[in-house]
Amino acid sequence: MAENLTRKILRSHLVTGELTPGSDITVAVDQILLEDATATMAAMQFEMLDAGSVAVPLAVTYVDHNVLQIDDKNMQDHRYLRSFSTRYGMRYSPAGNGISHYLHMERFVRPGELLVGADSHSSMAGAAGMFALGAGGLEVAVAMAGYGFDFVCPTVVGVRLVGSLPERVEAKDLVLELLRRHGVRGGRGRVFEFFGPGVAALRVSARGTICNMIVETGATTAIFPADEQTRAWLAEQGREAEYQPLAADPGAEYDEVEEIDLGSLEPLVALPPSPGNVRPVEDLEETPLVQVCVGSSVNSSYEDLATVAAILRGKSVASGVQLTVTPGSRQILQKIIASGVYEDLMAAGARMLEPVCGPCVGIGQAPLKGAASLRTFNRNFPGRSGTTGDRVFLCSPSTAGASALAGRITDPRPIGPLEIRPAQPVHDAAAALHITEVLPEEAREQVKVERGPNLVPPPLPSPLPEMLTARVLIAAGDDISTGDMAPDGAVAMSVWSNIAVCARFMFQRLDPGFHDRAQEWGGGIITAGENYGQGSSREHAALIPLHLGVRVIAARSYARIHRRNLIAAGIAPLMVLDDVEPATGDTWTIEGLAEAVSSGASEVLAQTGSAPIRLGIDLTPGERSILAAGGLLAYIRSGGRRHLRSEPVPVP
Amino acid sequence: MAENLTRKILRSHLVTGELTPGSDITVAVDQILLEDATATMAAMQFEMLDAGSVAVPLAVTYVDHNVLQIDDKNMQDHRYLRSFSTRYGMRYSPAGNGISHYLHMERFVRPGELLVGADSHSSMAGAAGMFALGAGGLEVAVAMAGYGFDFVCPTVVGVRLVGSLPERVEAKDLVLELLRRHGVRGGRGRVFEFFGPGVAALRVSARGTICNMIVETGATTAIFPADEQTRAWLAEQGREAEYQPLAADPGAEYDEVEEIDLGSLEPLVALPPSPGNVRPVEDLEETPLVQVCVGSSVNSSYEDLATVAAILRGKSVASGVQLTVTPGSRQILQKIIASGVYEDLMAAGARMLEPVCGPCVGIGQAPLKGAASLRTFNRNFPGRSGTTGDRVFLCSPSTAGASALAGRITDPRPIGPLEIRPAQPVHDAAAALHITEVLPEEAREQVKVERGPNLVPPPLPSPLPEMLTARVLIAAGDDISTGDMAPDGAVAMSVWSNIAVCARFMFQRLDPGFHDRAQEWGGGIITAGENYGQGSSREHAALIPLHLGVRVIAARSYARIHRRNLIAAGIAPLMVLDDVEPATGDTWTIEGLAEAVSSGASEVLAQTGSAPIRLGIDLTPGERSILAAGGLLAYIRSGGRRHLRSEPVPVP
Repeated sequence: MAENLTRKILRSHLVTGELTPGSDITVAVDQILLEDATATMAAMQFEMLDAGSVAVPLAVTYVDHNVLQIDDKNMQDHRYLRSFSTRYGMRYSPAGNGISHYLHMERFVRPGELLVGADSHSSMAGAAGMFALGAGGLEVAVAMAGYGFDFVCPTVVGVRLVGSLPERVEAKDLVLELLRRHGVRGGRGRVFEFFGPGVAALRVSARGTICNMIVETGATTAIFPADEQTRAWLAEQGREAEYQPLAADPGAEYDEVEEIDLGSLEPLVALPPSPGNVRPVEDLEETPLVQVCVGSSVNSSYEDLATVAAILRGKSVASGVQLTVTPGSRQILQKIIASGVYEDLMAAGARMLEPVCGPCVGIGQAPLKGAASLRTFNRNFPGRSGTTGDRVFLCSPSTAGASALAGRITDPRPIGPLEIRPAQPVHDAAAALHITEVLPEEAREQVKVERGPNLVPPPLPSPLPEMLTARVLIAAGDDISTGDMAPDGAVAMSVWSNIAVCARFMFQRLDPGFHDRAQEWGGGIITAGENYGQGSSREHAALIPLHLGVRVIAARSYARIHRRNLIAAGIAPLMVLDDVEPATGDTWTIEGLAEAVSSGASEVLAQTGSAPIRLGIDLTPGERSILAAGGLLAYIRSGGRRHLRSEPVPVP
Repeated sequence: MAENLTRKILRSHLVTGELTPGSDITVAVDQILLEDATATMAAMQFEMLDAGSVAVPLAVTYVDHNVLQIDDKNMQDHRYLRSFSTRYGMRYSPAGNGISHYLHMERFVRPGELLVGADSHSSMAGAAGMFALGAGGLEVAVAMAGYGFDFVCPTVVGVRLVGSLPERVEAKDLVLELLRRHGVRGGRGRVFEFFGPGVAALRVSARGTICNMIVETGATTAIFPADEQTRAWLAEQGREAEYQPLAADPGAEYDEVEEIDLGSLEPLVALPPSPGNVRPVEDLEETPLVQVCVGSSVNSSYEDLATVAAILRGKSVASGVQLTVTPGSRQILQKIIASGVYEDLMAAGARMLEPVCGPCVGIGQAPLKGAASLRTFNRNFPGRSGTTGDRVFLCSPSTAGASALAGRITDPRPIGPLEIRPAQPVHDAAAALHITEVLPEEAREQVKVERGPNLVPPPLPSPLPEMLTARVLIAAGDDISTGDMAPDGAVAMSVWSNIAVCARFMFQRLDPGFHDRAQEWGGGIITAGENYGQGSSREHAALIPLHLGVRVIAARSYARIHRRNLIAAGIAPLMVLDDVEPATGDTWTIEGLAEAVSSGASEVLAQTGSAPIRLGIDLTPGERSILAAGGLLAYIRSGGRRHLRSEPVPVP
């Protein structure tokens, strides 16, 4: 059978299970990516597994989020992660090297391999023909410990690209087009695999933009074939030997297919408060701006920055508009300096920031409340910028550049062709420095893991109760992001290594009384609408409710990673089946909860003051076992059946 | 009479008074420097003066402190300052242009002129033959409004420099030597004027280092002659026409004289917790480091950064040591890029930060608690780095570079001569962009001053009471810095535009209960030891106690700027004359307070539970009038006798 690339890679890595969409599968992991914001929790959980060393061929910890250091907590985290990584056989990239996804693209991506990252945008490595996906910290820690990685086999959507992008229309507009088509829920359970004649002209950095932001549709990941662009990318990185051409078989089957005519695309903008709220740039042209931010893991490649620089060259950012530019990595920084792009940007008035996540997660450059900030980033969830009441618009580098000059959202197409400064070859391998190597085992054993007071291991759940009586703590709406549960920002994220402290921020934007109420009521139930837990992979969004005594969530539907994080934390993600509107303060009693979950029942009843509510239990057998055991850590430690990693076979 | 340069400039600017050390004088101000952290308060006070436009020839607002933007307060401040500056005829330099003192050196210093800045390190402009000093925001606002600037005529110390600096011994070591000699109190009431054969070889940037950090001795300011180095500096900035040679007359008299043989200097380090705690680098050589920071207003010139780069070139920062580098301005950034210095630093592993104050005021890069951080900065007061329990050491760029490589404090002299990359000429005047011009008056009147909710005008005092009964709120020790009253750091400084909110941070490090106790007791008296209020010019350190109901401070002695800020805020800075140790909670009753201050009495008695305490009133007649009126704003608004600015005569 003519096979698509996604299936080829999954099959080559399959430890157990059937490649049928919706079923439990276990795959062997080649590469692990951690970033500091989620890594501290993942690392403390890895230590709780008593696994000895990390048992995957490559594992890297990147510090790219908590780097402002507004007090000493960030450096405590860094010291812990450095010593942890050294001790257990990981590589470590300190603050200032760059954004994990860009660094990983430069140093480690390899066609046909499988990567799991404790960051939702780990999907970016799909740009180089890898199967790469984000997961919660504990699930990643378990994979690091030498187990296979469990997830639900996705549906494969073939996206056929034809034509070529018009001038000033970019890869970002392509992924915004997919968001326009599918919204923030339509991609759930899906992998978007790109093929067709329009693929060849897209550089790896452009593919990275698409694979990164695809997760905003709810997708598991996206993937491009490994082709001459991939070879060129690897060659530029001095790694051409790692190139392997990979593609779907001719005439390969896909579960679903759609087509995009690149030539028909136009500049698009995602309006607040959602990356799925996409409109043509023309609809917004009179929107005045106070800030334009270029960068983030989705759009801080050399090409992205050189494009903005070409638009700004010799001109000046509109008066009163703050322009910030964040290169993706030290290598990109080196390239923009060598080519003159840096100077173009600086001379135009840009604030040139370090290569870090920065403003994308509200760690610096928070905008004025209520005033429009236009960003080349991937998310505009409310408050993610660090400002309560923010108004963040998402766009391409070209749109950002044109708009920074005009001081309002502006269609970049009238600019036409640009003289983009060509990148100089990377020299001296400066970019290669400053990621540590793995020490020999004898040396590793001498390393003391330094865990400061900011680092507190997460709570451990008891097994699910048989009977639960609890009050509804909050009745949340649709598309609640994990950023509402564990908010972004320099202050809130500085305590992500201590669940009890970061719990104080949960739902602060929606309901400032949530935390205290949860403590007063001794826990409770959270109800929500569709797509609960969209966005970031941060497992804090599950560990905080666990800490607060929540054991059941009742939503209409869930985002993939958060659903798995709830299960790993021993919290049952149930589905509200009836047409009811729960209210804060309602008391629910669920009898037979643990039994229903273990036995394979598809529903359980919640008794309320009025009519009972049917709660669906849509869990795979593997998920039921984990919940019954009291979460993933308890499941593993109690000797639960879990498949060890096996060596993958080469992708054909 | 052969006159020194200080007296020449003061005489040329004298509006009224006698140039006798210790007496009230009023001088005409040519240049005003504001920086955002202190500017918001100064600007709101300027608005309270109803003065129309700014009435000095040059006034510039720089945004260089509160620029991390961890929430939307910083941008509110920026918007206010931009609109205020535009409205009232100031120039405005937005975030990212650089550190006020470096930018001012590049763009505006002019030999023979007189500058007052709302920042203690405004003294830096003395490097170019100016008389430049820091003051509190309200005193600066009053000068902006067209009044003369009042201060106490200083003693002039002639510092004769002979010889030349050994390799790897730098201007920073010279000013550290002065701190070793005089401590943090010995410079009070003094201007250090440099002369002699050792002056000629010191570049303007090196002179800037000395004039900047001289204020840590308590000095009013420092000054260098305007000579061929000054001409070269101005020529490099395209401003050679503004050059005027200026020096003390041959054989000029000084109130005091000291000599420094540059050839005998050695690398010095100031140990925590004080810039006056100076030791030879050899004494500290085994101190392991977690962080090295290069930059700040005292040491981020091209030469400083190029020196560090030459030490690091082709090598790598010690593993586990975080090196940060902050250029002083966009021009310096441009130069280090053009010359290759930037790349040397980056390749060695430095985190290259924006040209801002940054870590020097704890706005980012806070170090690990208890671990040594070595910095080329000017202050190491406890907690100033943003970390409670920090351990900050101050040193020269060469010492910082050598130590970053070694991972511990290291004598740089064994390195010997360096190949320092020469600076390229500044081109395109990129550095000149992005500071606004003053608009014509008609246009200014159309500008709306945008004052967001983070900006709250400061409290206004009532006249001093005749009888005061109050409890001692805190009995503080010697050398309490204004940073203990209004702490540094991204969080604490983000609320500096709102006294009631920043009051919560007062004395937090020394006594976390201070704020609540002051509120509970409805105010009180602060007692302290020597040199109360050293360090920064932040008038918040006076406005917060005013807000909390403090009208009397009783200390052994005061730092210059803080003492004036207390008077401007209507708080009496009295002197404890008896050998007593006040205790928190003691109740004091002072009868006849207002009368004693107005009448010229030299003492007043505080009745306590035990023996009465004599409190000295060491105030000039001008200061007594201000206090009697209820502070400087009330004094001016009530038509108090205040001399208007008059046109200075040329310095001979």
